[in-house]
Amino acid sequence: MAGKVVLVGAGPGDPGLITVRGLEEVRRADAVVYDRLVPAEVLQEARGAELYYVGKEPGGSGPSQEEINRLLFELASRGLRVVRLKGGDPLVFGRGEEECLYLASRGVECEVVPGVPSYVYAASRSMAALGSRLGSHSYTVATATLAGGSFNEGLARHLEHSDTLVVLMGARFAERVLSSAASARGWELPGVVVYRGGMEGERVIVGSLRDLLEAYRRGEYGNPSVFILGGAAGVAARLQGTLHRP
Amino acid sequence: MAGKVVLVGAGPGDPGLITVRGLEEVRRADAVVYDRLVPAEVLQEARGAELYYVGKEPGGSGPSQEEINRLLFELASRGLRVVRLKGGDPLVFGRGEEECLYLASRGVECEVVPGVPSYVYAASRSMAALGSRLGSHSYTVATATLAGGSFNEGLARHLEHSDTLVVLMGARFAERVLSSAASARGWELPGVVVYRGGMEGERVIVGSLRDLLEAYRRGEYGNPSVFILGGAAGVAARLQGTLHRP
Repeated sequence: MAGKVVLVGAGPGDPGLITVRGLEEVRRADAVVYDRLVPAEVLQEARGAELYYVGKEPGGSGPSQEEINRLLFELASRGLRVVRLKGGDPLVFGRGEEECLYLASRGVECEVVPGVPSYVYAASRSMAALGSRLGSHSYTVATATLAGGSFNEGLARHLEHSDTLVVLMGARFAERVLSSAASARGWELPGVVVYRGGMEGERVIVGSLRDLLEAYRRGEYGNPSVFILGGAAGVAARLQGTLHRP
Repeated sequence: MAGKVVLVGAGPGDPGLITVRGLEEVRRADAVVYDRLVPAEVLQEARGAELYYVGKEPGGSGPSQEEINRLLFELASRGLRVVRLKGGDPLVFGRGEEECLYLASRGVECEVVPGVPSYVYAASRSMAALGSRLGSHSYTVATATLAGGSFNEGLARHLEHSDTLVVLMGARFAERVLSSAASARGWELPGVVVYRGGMEGERVIVGSLRDLLEAYRRGEYGNPSVFILGGAAGVAARLQGTLHRP
């Protein structure tokens, strides 16, 4: 019997934000191969399944992508129904496509069940409407950290054409993320940081780029954080103003 | 007793792709105010709730945003727990923030449960990895149709800075979407169209911009469709090549 691999997006850290279908896949899996930041409550639903942790620690240690690919292939080759569980969505900087490419080229069926990306959750917590008539007609999603680990110098130019810039994997380079955004649109640009979105210790910060820089220097956020800079953050600021009115 | 409004993203048309928490909110609602394209199976879970359909038909008829805002306010003022159910995610061109702003400024609590946006689903169906080391280091999401109903002439310039452009509400302007993308990156640029994503009659088309134009002229897709143009579509094309190998 041929096995198969289902890549499931677990969504942000909150266990209630996996999809109904994603949870069903976890429950019927023979094996679950999971990452860091996948909610423990979701893993507990994989009763009787073989569990494999392949998360990468912030320092970079952990199995290589090639090792993960091989593990998935081996499990599927044993005829197992394998769930590959990732935070957020598997195809939003989750390397799910690399795993599917590896598997498909070796004749193993690979399917994706999408998840709520971390930044869509961050928007929901802060009311930073990513696509909005109130000032975010377009948004760009990019990572601050390039594949080699260096800073993405091209980040700021997105703010010249898109109303809103969403920055992922940016906490390590927070000062550079904020100053490059400021170089494009000034330090008064509204911004939102959501730190540990959906997890214990979650923190939502809304303010100008300058406020976000000061909050960072005071140690109010670190890894993992999502930055939403520009138009959508302006909507968030407007709504916070409304909420704070007595 | 004060009512409240919970904006819930139902995800794409597939009823399995609402989040676990979103479905719980529908089940415990006193009233559900819902849009077009919200899955019937999800609505059926709102047992005993008052149901209000406020969808806008493709021609534009249906209640105005102001009427919807007022309905939400009235229901919450009656002390009801109101679920405002929208396709995709409420804050990705869903006008959820306008509803929350209206409610919050009148003292009604408003919360958002995020959903899988239609374009994240479209990516999962075609393996168009939106954020990928294989060629999509950034992506921009924009609508082809501006608030007034006219074509967004600025679409193509996003393809000068982002690897991938996701176009929503584009079917009506399909020829202009494709030719403006071609003006930026040429007719051989890879593209994906997902028509009726998650619904009956779903169709996934992967090809060059030229292929997509021909498919449109043959009547193979219309409203609603998601366009994924550039880098991520190249990943999709590469994977389709792999899958089609005997």
